[in-house]
Amino acid sequence: MTKHGYNSGRLNLPFVGISTFSKSPYVENWDAIDADVAVMGAPFDFGTQWRSGARFGPRGIREASTLFAFGHAGAYDHEDDVTYLEGVRMVDIGDADIIHTDTINSHANIEFGVRKILAAGALPVVLGGDHSINIPCINAFSEQEPVHVVQFDAHLDFVDERHGVRNGHGNPMRRAIEKPWVTGMTQLGIRNVSSTAKEGYDYARARGSDILSVRQVRKLGVEGMLERIPAGKRYYLTIDIDGFDPSIAPGTGTPSHGGFLYYDVLEIIAGLAKRGDIVGIDLVEVAPDYDHTGSTSILAAQILLNTIGRIFAARGK
Amino acid sequence: MTKHGYNSGRLNLPFVGISTFSKSPYVENWDAIDADVAVMGAPFDFGTQWRSGARFGPRGIREASTLFAFGHAGAYDHEDDVTYLEGVRMVDIGDADIIHTDTINSHANIEFGVRKILAAGALPVVLGGDHSINIPCINAFSEQEPVHVVQFDAHLDFVDERHGVRNGHGNPMRRAIEKPWVTGMTQLGIRNVSSTAKEGYDYARARGSDILSVRQVRKLGVEGMLERIPAGKRYYLTIDIDGFDPSIAPGTGTPSHGGFLYYDVLEIIAGLAKRGDIVGIDLVEVAPDYDHTGSTSILAAQILLNTIGRIFAARGK
Amino acid sequence: MTKHGYNSGRLNLPFVGISTFSKSPYVENWDAIDADVAVMGAPFDFGTQWRSGARFGPRGIREASTLFAFGHAGAYDHEDDVTYLEGVRMVDIGDADIIHTDTINSHANIEFGVRKILAAGALPVVLGGDHSINIPCINAFSEQEPVHVVQFDAHLDFVDERHGVRNGHGNPMRRAIEKPWVTGMTQLGIRNVSSTAKEGYDYARARGSDILSVRQVRKLGVEGMLERIPAGKRYYLTIDIDGFDPSIAPGTGTPSHGGFLYYDVLEIIAGLAKRGDIVGIDLVEVAPDYDHTGSTSILAAQILLNTIGRIFAARGK
Amino acid sequence: MTKHGYNSGRLNLPFVGISTFSKSPYVENWDAIDADVAVMGAPFDFGTQWRSGARFGPRGIREASTLFAFGHAGAYDHEDDVTYLEGVRMVDIGDADIIHTDTINSHANIEFGVRKILAAGALPVVLGGDHSINIPCINAFSEQEPVHVVQFDAHLDFVDERHGVRNGHGNPMRRAIEKPWVTGMTQLGIRNVSSTAKEGYDYARARGSDILSVRQVRKLGVEGMLERIPAGKRYYLTIDIDGFDPSIAPGTGTPSHGGFLYYDVLEIIAGLAKRGDIVGIDLVEVAPDYDHTGSTSILAAQILLNTIGRIFAARGK
Amino acid sequence: MTKHGYNSGRLNLPFVGISTFSKSPYVENWDAIDADVAVMGAPFDFGTQWRSGARFGPRGIREASTLFAFGHAGAYDHEDDVTYLEGVRMVDIGDADIIHTDTINSHANIEFGVRKILAAGALPVVLGGDHSINIPCINAFSEQEPVHVVQFDAHLDFVDERHGVRNGHGNPMRRAIEKPWVTGMTQLGIRNVSSTAKEGYDYARARGSDILSVRQVRKLGVEGMLERIPAGKRYYLTIDIDGFDPSIAPGTGTPSHGGFLYYDVLEIIAGLAKRGDIVGIDLVEVAPDYDHTGSTSILAAQILLNTIGRIFAARGK
Amino acid sequence: MTKHGYNSGRLNLPFVGISTFSKSPYVENWDAIDADVAVMGAPFDFGTQWRSGARFGPRGIREASTLFAFGHAGAYDHEDDVTYLEGVRMVDIGDADIIHTDTINSHANIEFGVRKILAAGALPVVLGGDHSINIPCINAFSEQEPVHVVQFDAHLDFVDERHGVRNGHGNPMRRAIEKPWVTGMTQLGIRNVSSTAKEGYDYARARGSDILSVRQVRKLGVEGMLERIPAGKRYYLTIDIDGFDPSIAPGTGTPSHGGFLYYDVLEIIAGLAKRGDIVGIDLVEVAPDYDHTGSTSILAAQILLNTIGRIFAARGK
Repeated sequence: MTKHGYNSGRLNLPFVGISTFSKSPYVENWDAIDADVAVMGAPFDFGTQWRSGARFGPRGIREASTLFAFGHAGAYDHEDDVTYLEGVRMVDIGDADIIHTDTINSHANIEFGVRKILAAGALPVVLGGDHSINIPCINAFSEQEPVHVVQFDAHLDFVDERHGVRNGHGNPMRRAIEKPWVTGMTQLGIRNVSSTAKEGYDYARARGSDILSVRQVRKLGVEGMLERIPAGKRYYLTIDIDGFDPSIAPGTGTPSHGGFLYYDVLEIIAGLAKRGDIVGIDLVEVAPDYDHTGSTSILAAQILLNTIGRIFAARGK
Repeated sequence: MTKHGYNSGRLNLPFVGISTFSKSPYVENWDAIDADVAVMGAPFDFGTQWRSGARFGPRGIREASTLFAFGHAGAYDHEDDVTYLEGVRMVDIGDADIIHTDTINSHANIEFGVRKILAAGALPVVLGGDHSINIPCINAFSEQEPVHVVQFDAHLDFVDERHGVRNGHGNPMRRAIEKPWVTGMTQLGIRNVSSTAKEGYDYARARGSDILSVRQVRKLGVEGMLERIPAGKRYYLTIDIDGFDPSIAPGTGTPSHGGFLYYDVLEIIAGLAKRGDIVGIDLVEVAPDYDHTGSTSILAAQILLNTIGRIFAARGK
Repeated sequence: MTKHGYNSGRLNLPFVGISTFSKSPYVENWDAIDADVAVMGAPFDFGTQWRSGARFGPRGIREASTLFAFGHAGAYDHEDDVTYLEGVRMVDIGDADIIHTDTINSHANIEFGVRKILAAGALPVVLGGDHSINIPCINAFSEQEPVHVVQFDAHLDFVDERHGVRNGHGNPMRRAIEKPWVTGMTQLGIRNVSSTAKEGYDYARARGSDILSVRQVRKLGVEGMLERIPAGKRYYLTIDIDGFDPSIAPGTGTPSHGGFLYYDVLEIIAGLAKRGDIVGIDLVEVAPDYDHTGSTSILAAQILLNTIGRIFAARGK
Repeated sequence: MTKHGYNSGRLNLPFVGISTFSKSPYVENWDAIDADVAVMGAPFDFGTQWRSGARFGPRGIREASTLFAFGHAGAYDHEDDVTYLEGVRMVDIGDADIIHTDTINSHANIEFGVRKILAAGALPVVLGGDHSINIPCINAFSEQEPVHVVQFDAHLDFVDERHGVRNGHGNPMRRAIEKPWVTGMTQLGIRNVSSTAKEGYDYARARGSDILSVRQVRKLGVEGMLERIPAGKRYYLTIDIDGFDPSIAPGTGTPSHGGFLYYDVLEIIAGLAKRGDIVGIDLVEVAPDYDHTGSTSILAAQILLNTIGRIFAARGK
Repeated sequence: MTKHGYNSGRLNLPFVGISTFSKSPYVENWDAIDADVAVMGAPFDFGTQWRSGARFGPRGIREASTLFAFGHAGAYDHEDDVTYLEGVRMVDIGDADIIHTDTINSHANIEFGVRKILAAGALPVVLGGDHSINIPCINAFSEQEPVHVVQFDAHLDFVDERHGVRNGHGNPMRRAIEKPWVTGMTQLGIRNVSSTAKEGYDYARARGSDILSVRQVRKLGVEGMLERIPAGKRYYLTIDIDGFDPSIAPGTGTPSHGGFLYYDVLEIIAGLAKRGDIVGIDLVEVAPDYDHTGSTSILAAQILLNTIGRIFAARGK
Repeated sequence: MTKHGYNSGRLNLPFVGISTFSKSPYVENWDAIDADVAVMGAPFDFGTQWRSGARFGPRGIREASTLFAFGHAGAYDHEDDVTYLEGVRMVDIGDADIIHTDTINSHANIEFGVRKILAAGALPVVLGGDHSINIPCINAFSEQEPVHVVQFDAHLDFVDERHGVRNGHGNPMRRAIEKPWVTGMTQLGIRNVSSTAKEGYDYARARGSDILSVRQVRKLGVEGMLERIPAGKRYYLTIDIDGFDPSIAPGTGTPSHGGFLYYDVLEIIAGLAKRGDIVGIDLVEVAPDYDHTGSTSILAAQILLNTIGRIFAARGK
C-alpha cells in the first residue's frame, strides 16, 4: 500500500483518482518490477460456458479495491490487533494482452506476465478473467519449486476434453494435475449439478485430489480442514468467486447456491498462510456487469487484500 | 433429462438453444404426455398485493434451468455419490392459458393442465405465477388419493376473505385446508409482519396446521423437523420462493428477511422424499424482472431439479 | 399504526396510497406532534467517502415500509404470540431541511427536528442520510437524561479530524463520546479494513467503548452480549445499515462483507428493549439507488417496525 | 404549486420531504377537495397483456414530480416568457382503492374518485395504472357535458371482446366510443404490430375516429394536426406513455419503437389547450420498475406539469 | 406466424408459453424444414472487442418477439393498410452448436445450419451472436446466385488481419468482399471513431463499397438512398444493431452515438424489398444483459418481423 | 493518443489495461506536465440538488473512453476524410483532491489543478463532478486572456444565492459572469421547468447572455447559431451532460426531456473550433451509477475526443 498519510499531502478519498489495485503504483515496464506483490489482470473470458463478462473482472476489482484504500499506512484489524499490509510493497502491472477469437495466444500472453512477476521475485496475484486463465498461470510455475494447489470453487473443473475443448473454464484443474510441478490438490466448495460428470470426479480422486463440499468443510471446522492440507508446502491459491454463495457473489458467470460465506474462506486462507507459504494467487470469474450492487467486486478486493496481508504477516513482514 | 452426450452430436452448452425446462422435450399436445415428470407454467399474477411480475416466472425458471443442462445423462452429486435424474423422463408442456382481468378462467385453465398431467400418470411440477395458482393445482387433485401439504413460505396465506377476495395470493392455504382430500398441512418458514392477521393463525392452528418459523425449524434440525410430518403419506409440496431469504431470492413480490438458505430447504425435501411420496409440486412467486442477477430463477431451477432427482431416487429410479 | 381494518372502508393494499412511514399520518406542523413515535427523515449525504445516495434513504424506507402496512391493527408475531404495535400512535413528520454544500446548517436543521420530537414527548426515529446525521441527533439530546449509545455498524466511525473534516460519516462516534450526556458506548459489528486507523480504536477503547466484531458477538450469544451492556439505562440506538451483511443490505455506500444477518440484530435489540429503555433511534446509510432489488430498504423498514413494536411492548403498550 | 419561496422558511430541495404530486398538499378527505386541479392515483394493472407493474406508476410519477418542485411560485418558461402554474391551486388526493383479483370493484373505486373530483369542480388528473383505468375515468363523465377524446398511444386499444375480456388495457377506446357523452376521438401515434387486429381499425374508422401514426402527425405539422381536431370543444386527454418512443419512455409494459418525442406531444397539447378546454386527463402505463434510469417517470411528470400549466394559462390563470 | 385465432382455442397472451421466434413452430430436425422462413440462432460472441454477451442474443430476441405474437393471423399495418405476414410459413430451428474457445468449429456449425435452410428453400434469418457470425452466413451462400450485401452498422468491419485475427467482429465485411459470390456492398450508418483504421476504408472504397454515414443517408432521403443500390438484385441484409442509435439500442457491445432511428432503417428496408429480393438476413450484436429495459431486443424483433412481412408482401404473398 | 500500433507490440483491446482517459499516459507529478492536452478529474458532487453520484463521473468517463482507444495512431473520420488526434500529445493527470463535507477546500483543489495545466501550456479538460466545479475552473483563468463562455445545458444555473448557497450546481454561470475575464456567455439547450427562477433569466439577459432553447438552436441551424457567437475569440466550453436528451444521457442528476442529440452539439462545437480557439473545457454531471447501459459515459467520452480532435485540427495539428 502506498505510503501517503492523512496529515500531509492529499486526503485521497476512495472515489478519487486512477483505479489501480488498491491504488498501488502502476508499473508499465515489466522488466522493472521491484515489489513484494505484483498484481496483473488477465481479462480473458472466451472459456465460459454460460454468462461471459469476466473480461471486465480486472477493472471491476481494481475499482472496488479503492474502497479499501483510505490512505492509512496499512490496515488495522481490531480482532487480530494487527496492522496488516504495513510496509508491503505492492505494484499493479496492468493486464496481459488478449487476442479476441484466439485462446492460445491470449493464454500465452498471460503466462508471459506471470513469468515476469516470478522472475522479479514478487508474489503474483492474477485477476481473471474466467477460470481457464489458471492454465497459463500454472504453466508459468514450470521452473519454480513444486506447489500444492488449493482451490475454492463450486465446480470441479476437471473435464479432460469435450468436442476438442481442452482449455476452457471447465478444464483447468485437469490441466493442472497433469503438471509435474503440481504435487497435490485440495478442492473446496464443490457442490451440486456441475459441468464435470462422474468420470471427472473419479479421475480427480484417482489422482489424489481432496474434494470437499461446503457442508463437508464446515463440518470439519477450520482446524480440521487445514489438517487435510499437507503442511509446510508452497501453495498456489486459485479462488473461483463462484465458490462463494450467490448471496454475496452474484456477479459471476455460473452461480451455484449453497456456497461459502466470507469468513468460511478467509479463516481457511489465514490458516493456510501460517501452515506454509502461499506463492501464487489467481482470483477468477468476477463479471462486474452482472454485479449490479458491486458486492462481488468488493468481495474479491476484500478477500485479496486480507489474503495478501496475512501472507506477509506470516512471512514476518 | 435428454440423453445426448458429449461424445456424439452436439455440445449444446447451456446458453445454446430453445428454453424449455432443463432442455426437456416440449410436448404441445396435452393428450400425448408420456413421461415421469411434466412441467407446466402458470403465469398468473393478478393475485399479488405488492410487486407483480410472477407472470414471467415460468420463462425465467426455464432459462435458468438450462444452466444445469450440460448434456450429461443425469446429474452426479459427489456428496451423495449418486447420479440423479438418470433415466427420468421429463417433458415441458408449456403454459396454461391466462386471461387478463379474469381470475376465475385463468385458474380454471391451470387446473385443466394439472388434471391432464395427473391423467397421464406423470408428476406435475407447476411453475408460478403467484401463490394463488396453488388453488387450482390443489383443486386438480380432487380425484386423487389424499395428500398432506408441505409449504415453504414466509407468509401463512390463510386469509379467508377480505373485500370479497377469496382467490388472491394471501388465500391459498385457507382454500387448501377446506378440501376433503387435504389431510393436513405443515407450514415452514412463516415469520414476521405478514398479510395474515392473528385470526388466520388461530384458524390454521384449529385446523391442525403445524406452523414453524425459520428459527424453529433450525432448532429442531432436519430429523426433528421431519418427525413432525406424518410418515408414509403422499405429499404435495408448495414452495413460495419468498420462504427463502431475500439474500438468495430477491426476485419476488414480497420478500421477507430472515428466511431459509438453500440447504435448509433441500435437506428437508430430501428427507421428505424418503419419508413418503411427493406427488405434486408447485414453485411460485419468482418475479424475474426483480431478479437482476438471476439468482432467484437459478435457485428455483436448482431446487426443483434436485427435488425431482431425489423423488425418483427414492422411487428407485 | 393506523386503525382502519379490512371489514370497513378501504382494503388499502401496500402499493396503494401516499408513502409515509408505515402509512402513518403525516404531521406537517412540528409544534403539533401528538404521538408515541415520530419518524423524521434526514436526507443528508455530503458526509460520505465512497458512494453517496443516502439522501434518498428516507424515501426508500418509507416506500418499503408500506409493504408492512396491510391494514391490520398491529402486527401479529406467531413466534412470540404477541400482536405488536397495537395502539402505538405513530406519525411521520417529513424531513429536516437540507442545504446543499452546507453541512453546518443541514445538521442544525436535523437537530432542530429531533428537539421538536423530544419536546413533544415522542420517541424520535430518524431515517438517514449518511451516518454524520447521528451528530445532530445526539446533539439534540443535550437537555435529556444521559444515554448509553448502542451502535450496529461495520465501521468504528471514530476519526477525530482529517484535513479539517470533523462532521463526516467517519466521525460521529468520536463526536458522541465527547458529549457529557453520553455515558458509554457499545459498538457491534465492527470489522475488516476500515476508514478508522489504529489510533481511533485506541482512543475509543480508552474512552471505555466496548468494540465487538460480528464473530465476537456471535460467540457471546444474545444473552452474553446483552450482559456487556449496562442494564436499566436509557439507550440511544444508531443502526448503520452496513452493519448488516452485503447479502441483505447491498444498497449502501460502503458495504463490508461478513456482516450481521437479520436475526443477529433483531434479537439483540429485542433484548435491549427489555433491559432498559430505548429513547432514540437513527437508521442510516440506506442508499436506494444502489438497492436494485429493494432488499435494503425492506430490511430497514422491517427492523425499525419490529424495533418500535418491541420497545412499546416492553413499555407495556 | 405550493407557495413557499426561497427567502423564507425552508429550501425544500426536490429530494426532501413526502412525495405528493409536485409536493402539492395531500387531501385525504374526498369531500373536502377545494382546488383547481386534483391529482389521483389509479394503481391498477391486471389489465396488462405483457409486462405489468403500472400499479407503481402513481408512486413513480409522484417522486419524479418533486424534481420540478424547486419551491418557485410557478414555473418560468423562457421560450414563452410565461410563468406557468402561478396561482394554480393543485392538490393530491391519494389513490383509488384497488382490490386484487377484482377488476370490477377496482374500476368502480376509480370511477368514484373521479366523480368526487368533478363534483368539487376541479380538473381530474389521474395517474395510472394500465390503460384500462381510462374506462372508469370516462364512465365518471356520464353527467358532464360531452367530450372529444384525444389519445396519445402506440396502440389503438379498440378490441371489443376476446375470451370474455372487455375491460383490459386493449379495450378502453372501444368502451369509450360506446358512450353517448363521447362525441368523437382522435388517436395519435398508432403504429406497428399491435394488439388490435384489422377489424378493430375498421370499426374505429366506422365510428369516426381519426387515426394517425407518428409519421402522419409529423407530416401534418402541429397546426395541420390541430385543425383535424374539432375546435371549441371540451377535450378529454388520455396519454398512454407508450405513445412516446422507447428511447424516452422505456419504463412501460408494451414499448413500441418509432414513437413520439417530447416536443411532438407537448406542442400538440399546448395547441389543444388553446383550441378548446381540456377537462380531464389520465396518464397511464408508467411502470417504474422497468424504468431503471427514472426517465419515464420524469417524462410523465414533466408532460403533466407543462400540460396543467398550459391549460390554466389558456383559461386565463 | 401461427394460425390460432382468438375465437377458438387459447388466448395465448404474449407472456404465455415457450419462447420461439414469434411463437413459430420449433423444428428440431434440420432435414425437415418446410417453411418460407427459417429462423436460427448463432449465439457466438468470442469475436467481440469490448463488451460480450451477444451469445444471449437469440434468447433475448425470441422472448421479445412474443410481444408481437398476439395470435392474429398476420400483422395489420394501418399506415400501409396491409396485413403483413398472413400466410407466411415461419419456423424456428433453434441454434447452431457453439464450442467455447473454438472459433473455427463454432463458425462451421453456423454455416452448416444456414446451408440446411437454403437447401430447404427457406429464407434464412440468423440471430447473432456478434458480427463475426456473418462470416459463416456468407460462406453458406457459396452455391447460391450472387448477392449484393447491404449492411446497417456503426462500424465498417473491414479489418483484414491484426495479431493474426481474421474472424473477429471487426473483420466480416473484409471477408465478405473477398467472396466471388458477393458482387457489391452498401454500408450504411458508418460513423465516428471506429475499430477500422483509414487503410480499411481505402480498401473498401477500392473494392467498390458504398460507405455512407447516418447524416449522409438522411440527406439523400429514402429514394435517393435506394437509387445508389443496384436494382433488381438479390440482397443479403446484415443488420448490426449498433447501426441504430444507443437511445433505442443500448443493449449491445460497442454502442456509438449518432445512429439510425427506427423508421430510418425500416423505410430503406421496405424499399429494398421492392427493389429486388432479400434472400438472407442476419441481425447481430444484441446483448440482452446490457439491455435492462428490453428495448434493444424489442427493436430487433420489431425490425425483423416488419422486414419479413415486407419481403413476402413484395414477393406477392 | 498513445502511439503503439497493431503491427508491433500489443493489440491492447479496449477492455484491456488501466483506465486513463483514452489510455493516455498518467502523469502523477503536476509540475511535469508536458502535453498538448491534460485531462483532470474533479469528482465533487455536494453541489447537487437532486441525484448525486457525479463523483464517479471521472472514473466512468475514463472507462468509457477506452472503447475509443483501439490503438490507431489517431481517429479516422470518413465523413471529413481527416484522421483526428494524430500527433496530439494527451496526458491524464488524475483527480483533484476532494474533501468530504467541505466545498471551499474541494473547489480550491480543483482550481489548483487547472492552474497547473494552464501553467504547463496545455489545454485543460476537466471531468466533473457536478456543475459547481465550473466555478474553480473559471477562477483558474484569472491570469489568462479573457474568454467567452459557451455552455450546453438544460438549466441556466444562474441562481445568485439561496439560503446562503453560492457555490452549488445551480450557481456557476452567475459566478462566471461576475468575473472580469469572462467577456460574454452563450447558453444553449436551456429549457423547461428549472431551478432558476424568472429573476435569474432577467439578470442573465441584462448581463448580455444569449439564452437559447434546443428548439431555437435547431431553428437557427448550425451556421445561424455560430453567427451569434462572437468570432475570433477564446472560448471556454462547459458541457453539462444534461444539455443532451435523456434518451442518450440518462446517467445524470437532473435529466430534462427535449434535449440535444449527438450531432446537434458536435456540429456546433466543430464550428466553434474553427471560429476561434477553445482554450478550456469541462464536462460535468455524468453520474455513472444511474447510467446502467453505459450510454452516458460513452457519450461524454465520444464528444470529448471528437472535440479535442477538432480543436487541434483547427490549430493545424
